[in-house]
Amino acid sequence: MVAEPTRADKFSFGLWTVGWRAVDPFGDATRPALDPAEAVHRLAELGAWGISFHDDDLIPFGSDDTERARHIARFKDALAQTGLVVPMATTNLFTHPVFRDGALTSNDRAVRRYALRKVMRNMDLAAELGAETYVLWGGREGSETDAAKDVAAALDRYREGIDTLAQYVTDRGYGLKLALEPKPNEPRGDIFLPTIGHALAFISQLDHHEIVGLNPEVGHEQMAGLNFVHGIGQALWQGKLFHIDLNGQRGPRYDQDLIFGHGDLLSAFFLVDLLEHGGYTGPRHFDYKPLRTEDSTGVWASAAANMRSYLLLRERAQAFRADPAVQAALAESRVPELSTPTLAPGETVADLLADSSAFEEFDPDKAAERGYGFVTLSQLALEHVLGSR
Amino acid sequence: MVAEPTRADKFSFGLWTVGWRAVDPFGDATRPALDPAEAVHRLAELGAWGISFHDDDLIPFGSDDTERARHIARFKDALAQTGLVVPMATTNLFTHPVFRDGALTSNDRAVRRYALRKVMRNMDLAAELGAETYVLWGGREGSETDAAKDVAAALDRYREGIDTLAQYVTDRGYGLKLALEPKPNEPRGDIFLPTIGHALAFISQLDHHEIVGLNPEVGHEQMAGLNFVHGIGQALWQGKLFHIDLNGQRGPRYDQDLIFGHGDLLSAFFLVDLLEHGGYTGPRHFDYKPLRTEDSTGVWASAAANMRSYLLLRERAQAFRADPAVQAALAESRVPELSTPTLAPGETVADLLADSSAFEEFDPDKAAERGYGFVTLSQLALEHVLGSR
Amino acid sequence: MVAEPTRADKFSFGLWTVGWRAVDPFGDATRPALDPAEAVHRLAELGAWGISFHDDDLIPFGSDDTERARHIARFKDALAQTGLVVPMATTNLFTHPVFRDGALTSNDRAVRRYALRKVMRNMDLAAELGAETYVLWGGREGSETDAAKDVAAALDRYREGIDTLAQYVTDRGYGLKLALEPKPNEPRGDIFLPTIGHALAFISQLDHHEIVGLNPEVGHEQMAGLNFVHGIGQALWQGKLFHIDLNGQRGPRYDQDLIFGHGDLLSAFFLVDLLEHGGYTGPRHFDYKPLRTEDSTGVWASAAANMRSYLLLRERAQAFRADPAVQAALAESRVPELSTPTLAPGETVADLLADSSAFEEFDPDKAAERGYGFVTLSQLALEHVLGSR
Amino acid sequence: MVAEPTRADKFSFGLWTVGWRAVDPFGDATRPALDPAEAVHRLAELGAWGISFHDDDLIPFGSDDTERARHIARFKDALAQTGLVVPMATTNLFTHPVFRDGALTSNDRAVRRYALRKVMRNMDLAAELGAETYVLWGGREGSETDAAKDVAAALDRYREGIDTLAQYVTDRGYGLKLALEPKPNEPRGDIFLPTIGHALAFISQLDHHEIVGLNPEVGHEQMAGLNFVHGIGQALWQGKLFHIDLNGQRGPRYDQDLIFGHGDLLSAFFLVDLLEHGGYTGPRHFDYKPLRTEDSTGVWASAAANMRSYLLLRERAQAFRADPAVQAALAESRVPELSTPTLAPGETVADLLADSSAFEEFDPDKAAERGYGFVTLSQLALEHVLGSR
Repeated sequence: MVAEPTRADKFSFGLWTVGWRAVDPFGDATRPALDPAEAVHRLAELGAWGISFHDDDLIPFGSDDTERARHIARFKDALAQTGLVVPMATTNLFTHPVFRDGALTSNDRAVRRYALRKVMRNMDLAAELGAETYVLWGGREGSETDAAKDVAAALDRYREGIDTLAQYVTDRGYGLKLALEPKPNEPRGDIFLPTIGHALAFISQLDHHEIVGLNPEVGHEQMAGLNFVHGIGQALWQGKLFHIDLNGQRGPRYDQDLIFGHGDLLSAFFLVDLLEHGGYTGPRHFDYKPLRTEDSTGVWASAAANMRSYLLLRERAQAFRADPAVQAALAESRVPELSTPTLAPGETVADLLADSSAFEEFDPDKAAERGYGFVTLSQLALEHVLGSR
Repeated sequence: MVAEPTRADKFSFGLWTVGWRAVDPFGDATRPALDPAEAVHRLAELGAWGISFHDDDLIPFGSDDTERARHIARFKDALAQTGLVVPMATTNLFTHPVFRDGALTSNDRAVRRYALRKVMRNMDLAAELGAETYVLWGGREGSETDAAKDVAAALDRYREGIDTLAQYVTDRGYGLKLALEPKPNEPRGDIFLPTIGHALAFISQLDHHEIVGLNPEVGHEQMAGLNFVHGIGQALWQGKLFHIDLNGQRGPRYDQDLIFGHGDLLSAFFLVDLLEHGGYTGPRHFDYKPLRTEDSTGVWASAAANMRSYLLLRERAQAFRADPAVQAALAESRVPELSTPTLAPGETVADLLADSSAFEEFDPDKAAERGYGFVTLSQLALEHVLGSR
Repeated sequence: MVAEPTRADKFSFGLWTVGWRAVDPFGDATRPALDPAEAVHRLAELGAWGISFHDDDLIPFGSDDTERARHIARFKDALAQTGLVVPMATTNLFTHPVFRDGALTSNDRAVRRYALRKVMRNMDLAAELGAETYVLWGGREGSETDAAKDVAAALDRYREGIDTLAQYVTDRGYGLKLALEPKPNEPRGDIFLPTIGHALAFISQLDHHEIVGLNPEVGHEQMAGLNFVHGIGQALWQGKLFHIDLNGQRGPRYDQDLIFGHGDLLSAFFLVDLLEHGGYTGPRHFDYKPLRTEDSTGVWASAAANMRSYLLLRERAQAFRADPAVQAALAESRVPELSTPTLAPGETVADLLADSSAFEEFDPDKAAERGYGFVTLSQLALEHVLGSR
Repeated sequence: MVAEPTRADKFSFGLWTVGWRAVDPFGDATRPALDPAEAVHRLAELGAWGISFHDDDLIPFGSDDTERARHIARFKDALAQTGLVVPMATTNLFTHPVFRDGALTSNDRAVRRYALRKVMRNMDLAAELGAETYVLWGGREGSETDAAKDVAAALDRYREGIDTLAQYVTDRGYGLKLALEPKPNEPRGDIFLPTIGHALAFISQLDHHEIVGLNPEVGHEQMAGLNFVHGIGQALWQGKLFHIDLNGQRGPRYDQDLIFGHGDLLSAFFLVDLLEHGGYTGPRHFDYKPLRTEDSTGVWASAAANMRSYLLLRERAQAFRADPAVQAALAESRVPELSTPTLAPGETVADLLADSSAFEEFDPDKAAERGYGFVTLSQLALEHVLGSR
């Protein structure tokens, strides 16, 4: 029997996910606008715990202060009625034409200043709503021709922008952490900070690096053909997995934002295994798009499907780890041995050089005879995914 | 008239490039073994400045000390006769079956220890031959199934390994810098540190991070569909472009190692532009494979072709930068404006918040009217590449 | 000096290219609507020869008959004033939500019938305007999950649809040829007839296969990492290159529709070489999108850039073919020998079996000694592209 | 309980799969040579039904007639002892350097003649061993530079070659069918007939098209990011699925040849569903490579894993089709309606034009309101794959 989602599972959704009207590069909207308050109620009924938003999701761009206050009040009411929390918020720095060459790295300085202010205003609201994480996806930061950007200048401005925002958060005492969301391309030909790696590297150069981490998205890494589990593993290793966007993608192509599990299923299994057993305690946030073919019934079915997929994979991962055959196979593959340091406790470089068993007497041909047993291990994983063990 | 390569151009080649016997996953060698001394002489005649090597390129794996000394002596003689330098050396940690699950991150601890010693031995030779950079390509560090590796443990071991080698270099006073070479996959299904970004991020976690940088390869980033110029731009921005591998690739597929310029030509143009005008002063190192269809005539023609392609693109890049029409187009596109900080000198967050021209009075619709002129700029670049301006 | 485009060059543009308002999956329009009559005038001034259109480009969806007539009349006037021709027309079967599961292969039969009628109505207009080719791009024919479609049924319906339309054209005596446009994905997760090959294969199954051919697009094949020149070569070989869409793409990612030449430049060179020397006499049709960063100045600059890129590459290709060094290199690479049949004139299978020189006395090791010289050939091509020979 | 493989399942393996010694582009063999007779015995014990081979797998290249006879006799003995059949055979036209520019499309005519004879000789053996299908994988037919090949001439030669071989088979009365195996790249930069589609299109141009079909491979299509299930659907629709190569691949990268199911698992599920319910009755042939990390234990574990994965997915597919909820969801998604022709029985184009309900009275906005329910359908499929229904 499949477990039903509960608040303890910390499932959250972007308001823009269930609210996506299904405009795509070749097609008009297929669904009516969704009232944010309705989204809150429906998600709560389905068992979600949280909801996230862009400023312009909640408050249509260009609203005056009165309208703005009204939109916020309705949203707060819905939150209060349902108990849904707002663990994360973010800024729309990509829809309006003013951002067509980027926001924090636009060649136009006035746009960069405007962008900073737009973020700051929504950070105030994020803090007011109790968010812990503030996501920055720089979807328009990039170029279609390498002539258009001095990369060093762009990275200088990007650093200046993020550090300024981190300073703002610090000055206000908001306690928000910032999470950068990498993506390789689309809507720009090439986006700066295209992968988990590039974004982690960039963070290492920030003045405020302690409060800046990542919000990686499954599909974004897979658009570059990269192993998402390895990427998340590195982000966790560097202490920088602040938030995560779960969805599905079928390899290098346009950003599909499929339901979690509906893309690379084996990778989704190992991802859940890592999240559940690797120390991540944050939201399980779905950033997906209900297929354009669907009406509102399909929208809510798709929201539920994300959570069911996660829960099913969590069951499979727990069974995998608990299976004695798996434990034996891990040992046979010497997976635990990788946790043993290469040098002995206290061993120096000089000691290693003096150890003839390490080199002079080591027989590589002999050592190469024994296989690693990875076939058995991966087949056990597959059979757990298939629910056949 | 095309310039001829000179020593001042700092062109270097891997011994394994011209020496590749053209074994591929589906085919036997099509060329005889190449004597390293002959490689030195031929490359010198063609105008190269340097040669790099793996330990096993120069000294067949398993050679005894006498044979080893003889191989080294012959190589040194050839260097002395030609004046060719050895700017870089590296270790073969991938051919022998003992490394089939990796070297520094093998699940087998004995393999990890052996690998460290194998590197150290060749670092001695690198230092003796005057190399300034020691490259580490972890081609076997990775997996085909996520079950096979605890990523955190693997990165712990990788860090331990690189820090141990950096310590060795420091202890010996070699003055060598270490350069990691990222690659997303092949020969492993997924390789750790798959891109420039991931490797830069990893370096930020090292004890010896100051002497560790990168040796990025054109084709490796393009195998992940990433913009190599952006990647090199970030590596330069972080002060970590210690060395570079130039070649060609035609997008996500097997590692092609084509002649430089024979892959994505526009990217090659912008790369040369960046290397020549972005502050990189290291070797222009070609890491390519002469096509398997070629005999030794084709091998040497291909070596020459790499250098000619670079020199031609350098001419084009110089003309591009000098063209008044380009300078006008850059200004029209506001490329130089990106170098102006977003905040004014001394401006604080509070000042920005108080500047109503930045937000309250800023008219995004109005600001969005003027285009960026990137079309003109990119067409000018194209026409310079085509030699038509 | 770069040649200026003339009518003899047969350059044509989709009305939707210069008219693209730059809505993308993450952004609103950045440019105002373009009057089709203005498009005709501006393209004519720039040296174009033809213009193509979708029904809904010219006549907004839902127009009544009076409005429809007025739109058509204005367009005809502009054509008459400028001499621009309409070599091709096509149908929009993708923007309206009714087509969200496809048009000719929608699961909903009523949608399929409506789609046929929508095409037929625009075929009438195409014929009236003198078009010779009618393009069918089935961008919505496909799925995001394999459960959604019975592929055999879908191909049955696709065949029925195309044959019905071909019958209509024949019945009316329009003399139009139909050209299918393959694409692997976007906007659907996977599109039926994803490549040149699949579409050619499908055509072989049609009752009306003689009047159905292809309209391949550069970027669409490159989204699958396929060699466009090889694909066009096969389409020409099968007598099915009825029309072509020229643009640029940077490998597997979203459909970029860059200016021709601004993607894979070497491939663009060999494509022009093939079109100019391979027997294709149809329009050189640009199906690109002016970058979203551009205002109307950039739109027209980009239209001009497509033609300049083509003309420059045509000059390079002509010089390449005329260069005696190239001719010598082709001979050395035995390229012309591939035109000699493998069997001698009149030689039977039995004769081949009886020829011991072909097998029993053939020495493969000896035959493998001579290289193919492809390095020299490809470097000559590169240097011609660079304008350095 | 997982079903055990039986002869009735028609599982077969290439001799080169379990026999792969694990040489890769960067590494030496990690396993000893495997005696073909041992392969026959071990596969039979594991429950396989058939074995296929290349000429050079069975008889080392260059063997004299006596050796050849001996190798064949041993193999036949093993077949007789085990009851294993040989459903398919093929030729190695890629390992020897003589084929470095291709076999049937080599620029060198003598190579083309030799290749034909090499195939013919092994066709004799295939027929003698009772094979029904003869596979031709043209892995070396292609180029790394478009200058190297006149595509039309190459396709002329390819057609001549295949037709000559088909003539040979016909002349000899072998009853063998020919099956072409497409692949986009590797070992050549670009291979002719890169996809299922291109190969089907090519076959339509053959004199002997009736006896020539396809042997598609999972990973080969996925290297181009194409939907394998759609491709197989089209091959079945055209009556050309003569044989199939099952394995796994993780998107566009080098050819991984993973165990079936260990790549894109959802696609593997839908593939099994299509094979089992779409009319394919041929061998389920595994063309994979045991990971290079494995010793002989892993080799045989991997062979067994392929069959188990298939059987498990077959169970899931049967349960999916039998589930009333799935049947209801298919109906809701109108999947069966796609089998209803778009035109009514006997309806003509004129009839369709006269049907105002199809167009004039059709309300597209109204028709677009109802969603397609694909979310429910795909989630049901996912849950069947996970074994949770």
